Amino acid sequence: METGAFIEYYERNSCSSQWLEFNRGMALELSAGLPPEDLRQLFFRVGQRFAQALPNPPCATLDELQEQFNARWNGIHWGFTVLSEDAEGVAIAHACSPIAAAFGPATTNWSVGFFEGVYQAWFDAQHMPAELRVQALQPDAEAGPRIDLRLKKALP
Amino acid sequence: METGAFIEYYERNSCSSQWLEFNRGMALELSAGLPPEDLRQLFFRVGQRFAQALPNPPCATLDELQEQFNARWNGIHWGFTVLSEDAEGVAIAHACSPIAAAFGPATTNWSVGFFEGVYQAWFDAQHMPAELRVQALQPDAEAGPRIDLRLKKALP
Amino acid sequence: METGAFIEYYERNSCSSQWLEFNRGMALELSAGLPPEDLRQLFFRVGQRFAQALPNPPCATLDELQEQFNARWNGIHWGFTVLSEDAEGVAIAHACSPIAAAFGPATTNWSVGFFEGVYQAWFDAQHMPAELRVQALQPDAEAGPRIDLRLKKALP
Amino acid sequence: METGAFIEYYERNSCSSQWLEFNRGMALELSAGLPPEDLRQLFFRVGQRFAQALPNPPCATLDELQEQFNARWNGIHWGFTVLSEDAEGVAIAHACSPIAAAFGPATTNWSVGFFEGVYQAWFDAQHMPAELRVQALQPDAEAGPRIDLRLKKALP
Repeated sequence: METGAFIEYYERNSCSSQWLEFNRGMALELSAGLPPEDLRQLFFRVGQRFAQALPNPPCATLDELQEQFNARWNGIHWGFTVLSEDAEGVAIAHACSPIAAAFGPATTNWSVGFFEGVYQAWFDAQHMPAELRVQALQPDAEAGPRIDLRLKKALP
Repeated sequence: METGAFIEYYERNSCSSQWLEFNRGMALELSAGLPPEDLRQLFFRVGQRFAQALPNPPCATLDELQEQFNARWNGIHWGFTVLSEDAEGVAIAHACSPIAAAFGPATTNWSVGFFEGVYQAWFDAQHMPAELRVQALQPDAEAGPRIDLRLKKALP
Repeated sequence: METGAFIEYYERNSCSSQWLEFNRGMALELSAGLPPEDLRQLFFRVGQRFAQALPNPPCATLDELQEQFNARWNGIHWGFTVLSEDAEGVAIAHACSPIAAAFGPATTNWSVGFFEGVYQAWFDAQHMPAELRVQALQPDAEAGPRIDLRLKKALP
Repeated sequence: METGAFIEYYERNSCSSQWLEFNRGMALELSAGLPPEDLRQLFFRVGQRFAQALPNPPCATLDELQEQFNARWNGIHWGFTVLSEDAEGVAIAHACSPIAAAFGPATTNWSVGFFEGVYQAWFDAQHMPAELRVQALQPDAEAGPRIDLRLKKALP
């Protein structure tokens, strides 16, 4: 029994059974009716609403912000985030979320809009410069149950 | 402390915290973008998908059917149903579902489409005459955490 | 469909399915091995540990205390409490807890020790006079999913 | 972010928050009152009760048995098991259970009695030769969230 088997089990069971088939059905209907770019924008706006419903107190450092974000996520079993600063901006690694289990692996390219919306709204509420944009990176098939995003200056 | 206080507590907490704010945000976005009749049809189709994902074995009586339906609902904490036959068709009373808590009380007029879709697909799969239609009744504000639907002949 | 049917459904499903059969088995084994009075004391001490793990900030009024208690209970789906002061002390009404579902209705006379332990430790931590004792009242079969306790001066 | 971080997160959150602090308190009280060997026997008997409450249909092969065991475990979020036969008996690897999170890592030497009781009762109900005994192996600190047991002939 390998490490991969543990992660596969945990990830497959990460979405509350109350909403699993509902969410799967919703994903299929939304996919049938709207192009991926529209779905990504819908999920972005849902993410913004989510962020407004679960606000953070003002934070002075990136470490504090990470702690507050994780308090929000942890209380509702949505995994955890690791923030790290570099020359270009802030790398956001969000692990162990139920989103792939909930909507199905084929939806990752638009369901990720939810996290873009949440983190954008949470960073905006901390009074970041308005030109900073949160954007998901291309999914990395080897990354395990992890979504990578970046906060950086939007291209003009 | 009155009976109503117990029910209010239970109903308010009936939606998994993992999906409460997500669902609330989704309901707000969907409401902002589509008229109620379209939302009801979307939820109807989501209900059909849900029903296909959680099928019932063939049943010979209404009692058996009720038992099977409740095995599906109970496994995922979606309340329970009581079926009763009368001259006009079958009355379906679905109690204690998380749907009002999940999407908000203002959405009842379209979120009920989900139950119409589920029961329609489940009855269809039992080879009911094709002209039978499941339709939600007007919500009864005094009914408590209960949704009433009817299976009956569609008007021509 | 009557109000009682809603409450019965909700109460029967109030214990997490992960621990339902484990807890039922534990209750049977404990009952087979120890007299009720010892079990009540065991549950009292478990309640004290629980209270220490989930402490409240200092509160100035009974209303604040009720709010803090409910923040603790609500976060883990253990129902809610209503505190009210009268000539003899404080009446504590705890509703909608999963304890009867978890351990079985026959255990109420000793499982209630858990709540005595929790509330005793929580009131002690608020620097109440040391002679005040929390004690469960005789269960009232008509009370619904509710346990009544009192904080009052212990008999000398 | 390493694979280990995913597993650590998942394992830490594997016990329902409703019972986490209750179980932790119970483990502390039981440890304070009884020696490990008695606790292991108590948990063995709780496991037997659990197995009787969640019985399996008769199975003809080890693969069928594994499938049935996993249907029981999966329905209540207790992880999964892999059974494999060898010259000496049957190796049972149970992964991703909430038991270490629930009772604390220090309790593994006696809480494992629960799994001994469950598997013993489940194998007995399949009419195995009476001299076969389920016994946990020494915990392997490198094994991750996994408990290893063996079904083999008891020493005379």
